[in-house]
Amino acid sequence: MDKGYKDIIAFHGHSCPGLAIGYRMARAGLDYLSGSRAADEEMVAIVENDACGVDALQYLSGCTFGKGNLIFKDYGKQAYTLYNRQSKKGVRVLFGPQNIPENAGKNRDQFIDWLLSTPEENVVSLQEVRIDEPEPARIMRSVACESCGESVMATRTREVNGNTVCIPCAEKK
Amino acid sequence: MDKGYKDIIAFHGHSCPGLAIGYRMARAGLDYLSGSRAADEEMVAIVENDACGVDALQYLSGCTFGKGNLIFKDYGKQAYTLYNRQSKKGVRVLFGPQNIPENAGKNRDQFIDWLLSTPEENVVSLQEVRIDEPEPARIMRSVACESCGESVMATRTREVNGNTVCIPCAEKK
Repeated sequence: MDKGYKDIIAFHGHSCPGLAIGYRMARAGLDYLSGSRAADEEMVAIVENDACGVDALQYLSGCTFGKGNLIFKDYGKQAYTLYNRQSKKGVRVLFGPQNIPENAGKNRDQFIDWLLSTPEENVVSLQEVRIDEPEPARIMRSVACESCGESVMATRTREVNGNTVCIPCAEKK
Repeated sequence: MDKGYKDIIAFHGHSCPGLAIGYRMARAGLDYLSGSRAADEEMVAIVENDACGVDALQYLSGCTFGKGNLIFKDYGKQAYTLYNRQSKKGVRVLFGPQNIPENAGKNRDQFIDWLLSTPEENVVSLQEVRIDEPEPARIMRSVACESCGESVMATRTREVNGNTVCIPCAEKK
């Protein structure tokens, strides 16, 4: 087990087949783009599920929920698209296991070991894709909700009886 | 700067006021619940924004996008609710800075230093809350899309002309 995967377990909290899948997918996509980790938003990831593997992607790629460069499309597919704003290159990584040895198919730990060690072509397929470059994340100004007084992003307010209020206050009225 | 925050910078990719805010909020909430990091789903976080600070929360609490115990409500508020499934206790942490020294208000690095070092009551307020316990994440079976052939979660398929297809294929037709 390499250092990268151990660190990812520490972040995710445990090892599981899903995490190992995400590790191989993220590694393959980053290698394809010759991409280093995103300090800011130079890399963008579009993930088609919100399962365990996305934590491996967040950790390895620096495309994180809090940085605005992790875009979630709720398609229920084991696919990630990685896009590099500098090179304008994108790649879609699809999980598709093949040649699983009989023992690995029946035992969870052996399946994880196999996922981590088998040649890349046994677990993922890569397709270069052209995508419309996603907008960078923006910081918006905040205002005080005129009902509860809490600070709220101006773009997330509602008008209720002439007052500018936050969504939870709007929904209470 | 303590070890925890340094590790969080490595995960997020850079330091910024938002990350420091999330660090203080997450730390305060976890301390209130006497909660250790979530290896699985014993802790749940409901975040009311998707800004930088959430990466600090993911890293410190183990409530991560990929584990299904990070729930996003797009309210545009600097608030996190942490809930412990074992103790059934929940706390809402709200960012609200006060007593900011004049110099810290004008300089980004000094503002970060102040955010990280000022007493907790200057940056957050805590309120114990009762919430309906969120459902744990579930693993669903997958089927093959009858159009593109890719594997897709059965709960994310659509019926188009009698075929069971994935959302992107359904939207193309």
